[in-house]
Amino acid sequence: MNWKDITTIEDMEADAAKLQELACASCAETWQDRKAAQGVSCKFGEGGICCRICSMGPCRITPKSPRGICGADAAAIAGRNYLRMVAGGCAAHSDHGREICHTLYKSSADGNYKITDSEKLLRLAAEWGIETEGRDIYDIAHEVALTGLGEYGKAFGTQRFLSRANEERQKVWEELDIAPRAVDREIATAMHMTHMGNTADAEALVHQSMRTGMADGWGGSMMGTEFTDILFGTPKPCDTEANLGVIEEDMVNIIIHGHDPAMSEMIVLAAEDPAVLAHAREVGAKGINIAGLCCTANEVAMRHGVRMAGNFLQQENAILTGAVEMIAVDVQCIFPSLGPLSECFHTKFITTSPIARIPGSIYVKFNTDTAYQQALELVHMAIDNFKNRDASKVFIPKRKQTATVGYSCEAIIERLDTVTNSRVDERETYQPLIDCIRAGVIRGAVAIVGCNNPKVRPDYSHIEIMKQLIKNDIIIVATGCSAQAAAKAGLLSKEARELCGAGLKRVCTLCDIPPVLHMGSCVDISRMMLLATGIAKQWKIDVPQVPVVGCAPEWMSEKAVSIANYVISTGIDTYLGIRPQVHGSDQMMELITEGTRKLTGGGYIINTDPHELVQSMIDGIEAKRAALGI
Amino acid sequence: MNWKDITTIEDMEADAAKLQELACASCAETWQDRKAAQGVSCKFGEGGICCRICSMGPCRITPKSPRGICGADAAAIAGRNYLRMVAGGCAAHSDHGREICHTLYKSSADGNYKITDSEKLLRLAAEWGIETEGRDIYDIAHEVALTGLGEYGKAFGTQRFLSRANEERQKVWEELDIAPRAVDREIATAMHMTHMGNTADAEALVHQSMRTGMADGWGGSMMGTEFTDILFGTPKPCDTEANLGVIEEDMVNIIIHGHDPAMSEMIVLAAEDPAVLAHAREVGAKGINIAGLCCTANEVAMRHGVRMAGNFLQQENAILTGAVEMIAVDVQCIFPSLGPLSECFHTKFITTSPIARIPGSIYVKFNTDTAYQQALELVHMAIDNFKNRDASKVFIPKRKQTATVGYSCEAIIERLDTVTNSRVDERETYQPLIDCIRAGVIRGAVAIVGCNNPKVRPDYSHIEIMKQLIKNDIIIVATGCSAQAAAKAGLLSKEARELCGAGLKRVCTLCDIPPVLHMGSCVDISRMMLLATGIAKQWKIDVPQVPVVGCAPEWMSEKAVSIANYVISTGIDTYLGIRPQVHGSDQMMELITEGTRKLTGGGYIINTDPHELVQSMIDGIEAKRAALGI
Repeated sequence: MNWKDITTIEDMEADAAKLQELACASCAETWQDRKAAQGVSCKFGEGGICCRICSMGPCRITPKSPRGICGADAAAIAGRNYLRMVAGGCAAHSDHGREICHTLYKSSADGNYKITDSEKLLRLAAEWGIETEGRDIYDIAHEVALTGLGEYGKAFGTQRFLSRANEERQKVWEELDIAPRAVDREIATAMHMTHMGNTADAEALVHQSMRTGMADGWGGSMMGTEFTDILFGTPKPCDTEANLGVIEEDMVNIIIHGHDPAMSEMIVLAAEDPAVLAHAREVGAKGINIAGLCCTANEVAMRHGVRMAGNFLQQENAILTGAVEMIAVDVQCIFPSLGPLSECFHTKFITTSPIARIPGSIYVKFNTDTAYQQALELVHMAIDNFKNRDASKVFIPKRKQTATVGYSCEAIIERLDTVTNSRVDERETYQPLIDCIRAGVIRGAVAIVGCNNPKVRPDYSHIEIMKQLIKNDIIIVATGCSAQAAAKAGLLSKEARELCGAGLKRVCTLCDIPPVLHMGSCVDISRMMLLATGIAKQWKIDVPQVPVVGCAPEWMSEKAVSIANYVISTGIDTYLGIRPQVHGSDQMMELITEGTRKLTGGGYIINTDPHELVQSMIDGIEAKRAALGI
Repeated sequence: MNWKDITTIEDMEADAAKLQELACASCAETWQDRKAAQGVSCKFGEGGICCRICSMGPCRITPKSPRGICGADAAAIAGRNYLRMVAGGCAAHSDHGREICHTLYKSSADGNYKITDSEKLLRLAAEWGIETEGRDIYDIAHEVALTGLGEYGKAFGTQRFLSRANEERQKVWEELDIAPRAVDREIATAMHMTHMGNTADAEALVHQSMRTGMADGWGGSMMGTEFTDILFGTPKPCDTEANLGVIEEDMVNIIIHGHDPAMSEMIVLAAEDPAVLAHAREVGAKGINIAGLCCTANEVAMRHGVRMAGNFLQQENAILTGAVEMIAVDVQCIFPSLGPLSECFHTKFITTSPIARIPGSIYVKFNTDTAYQQALELVHMAIDNFKNRDASKVFIPKRKQTATVGYSCEAIIERLDTVTNSRVDERETYQPLIDCIRAGVIRGAVAIVGCNNPKVRPDYSHIEIMKQLIKNDIIIVATGCSAQAAAKAGLLSKEARELCGAGLKRVCTLCDIPPVLHMGSCVDISRMMLLATGIAKQWKIDVPQVPVVGCAPEWMSEKAVSIANYVISTGIDTYLGIRPQVHGSDQMMELITEGTRKLTGGGYIINTDPHELVQSMIDGIEAKRAALGI
């Protein structure tokens, strides 16, 4: 592989442009049209200095009106808006985690949901002090699930998973009082503090932002990840393909989109049913082709090799191919435009969760007790819809790339073990990675995460930053839409090692890994916290000292703001390519960049130019190396 | 009393104008200045059609751009913003209720917080199936408190207090699926549903608004009320005075402001300490004068007769008198402007809760274990500050009115019992009230609640509406800032019966009550729900049939939106004098006015003209009477 084998942004944009052109012919509207119609966005909203929290307003901050009617100034308004974004993000991730707890709670030997990774379940039960000796695995699962549900609402105490952190971190969290209590309580506290007539002190708002973010990353998200692994299997390296080229002209195409794998897992299973296959052949299709979008794509790719149609801003493109019989969604990041858009085609748009009710969809409320049967019915519905496909509207861009996905912490350690000598080395640790970093073979690691965003050139920053980093011997772990940007480009393929600096290339070759390690979906950023923690523990240093930083070059959602808060609280600097909507307040800008770093060791570095941003990351990593004397 | 004994809006405005004039001299800024500086407010925000939920935007709906970048239309955007307001309001009320649960949990025979109404505690324990036989009252209290805390976070089931409703209501709630689960979970669900890429269906957003509101009114708020009564006593009729004239020139004035009575109760107690009194005399003051603002005023007035300095928009005026040594606040409705404003005077501004951190204040974090001691120290601090009062800045408007406050449900029933014949009548019921309504002596009742708001002429709508209603033989129950508007006007005085129609006047005379019954603070709107429920049960009809409506003529806060949602869910029409910020969407407007009424029997009637609004209320009550054939 060399640089010309990479799918470039220009390639992706050319495909998108062709699809757009055809969209016009089908009278379909896309985000590009709506972005153009929106024009320049409101500067007050962008700066976070518009307050709509009570009906005396809305108020906004100008040089002539430095305070809202109640007296809230720019810092108070921007700070409250910021904390509410964190609350929204934490609620989204954590409620996803809660649903998985519920699914585990309903798992049974003969039901729709079974335990796949019982070892992980037993480890977690032991961690939580739950009796396992001589008990049925499902009894244990139900008690673990119930204990997990308790983490959302317990009246006293802080999150159980905090004890997984290294001691120094736990001490920092205790001292700063950002060790999160019950997940839902932190959300309620955030909403209360930001209510009219409460906190106007920006520092206190940033403090609660960190604590609420922590309730996500070390609470709801981490439970989401752990319980998902128990139910559906801990990811292992697995080959797949990515980009719209995975849509098959001669098959029934079903796109699964969203986040919570409970629905998508059932559809993947149902599509393997022989009767379903027979039905597909009856209608003249060669078979059923399931492809994923957004984090659902990550979840099913890394557990089943299901191919990935694309990330967030690709969701409309998938339908625009005209070859999608069904798009079935669960929660989060679903464009409401899929309603009117699917009506321009034969595509059936299925919503499945009370959390994401969308006009123009068929609503099939998924239920743990009937999930497989419901999935089967949906797959049959898609097959029946094959005949309605309008060949004149079909255009499937052919481009796709191969990708190896599924690098959970367990999988990373397993890869590292392959380069140890079982006679002399300690096994099942991050030591080989640490040795590489200390030796400078790898300079450090960057966790690149988050959405893509039309505020910038979509996917461009992700890919540019990744290319620069791997050239500079910095290994990347990626999740979410960022991981899929890498997949579409070809950077998740093992051959991408050819694009790396000599050191990283050697490591990739020895460990047989790509230079960008796919760690999963957005809730799986909790895996990254455990990875950084594991390295710090093994290295016997604190997390902020490890030459590891985080980066969300094109973040878009409130979840990203919540994530950013737990990442900086964990002591990891976070590089943002989109300005948080607080820049109307100098005090807030100071607090989120320098202020938090003084407390936790982590803060934001914000730069909308991806080339400058990546350089500052490289500098940041080199500075951490220098501080360690390596 | 006749109409000329009423304090008019013009009187109040004259006082405010004089204070404003003096404020200029002290370089103090007030809400009137800031309101003027804000100018015309943003129409997108006012209409609810500005979306800041992700960082692709902000987006706004115009004829040229009918959808945001993600495809969310006006209904989706306005609906999400509306649900987030409910989430904020529910969080505020309920978290206040949770704090009271915690206070009860920490109560002890020799601690700062003791049980005052042990009968109510025992009744509640019995209702919740908690063993009381032979147990220490504090053991029972702690178990009740723990059970209450469980209502915020339990993994399964709905709110316990729902079973207090009449059967038809409970059935409606079950069928509509708006019986709220754990309080915090409803808040988290609301935040999740409104997160980018989730619910865009306005009906589903209104549905969750109702369920989240229900978690407030029949959950957090009701617990707030019940546990407050247990700790500090169930209100009984009690005389007090209201308006700035309660501030005393020759005394140390301490204003207590906020909502949660845990702090204010301690200050009231501490001010009675003989050593404190001696200290006050030492500094040349005649004594300590405690006066309340906002809901704190309601809480301490109805339990201790503490006088009320005023409601929400009076908070700055109190400081502007120049005679306030200290303003101590807890949570909600605190103007951040109190920071800079208090600096223009000698006034000490004390914040006491981590929920409401405000720049320019002295932060004394109240703690149940040390609360009384902390309160004592604050009172001494205020006394020490007496010498710093600048006589040249002092101007205390003399106007005040007498008021009788404290009509809890228990107190109302006790009043009704006085007109029954103990030999022949059923006692301890609402039957006498029902008889009056059926006979037409009273036409019905209106619950008037909520804030005042500079969007309209503050307090004007409250007072105009009340005057009209009592003239038309409609009895009023009032809470919050509305009750204080009535108090300032003189409408909470028993003599105000002279202003009523003949029927209501007769009832007020016989029962020895004012025509406007003060039922407490905003969380005490839960009392109103129990009152309406109690009447419906006794009458053997459903709540929407009872000639009772709700009214928030000048609402301002998110709490009011949450309240409105549980009131309409309880089946009570709610008349609003300020338009909810959803009017940019016709669908949302239809849903909140007519849509909910088809489901629950209650919906909004919106009219910004108070005279038209009161007429529509009278018509609404008469229509309910006609439907009952009375």
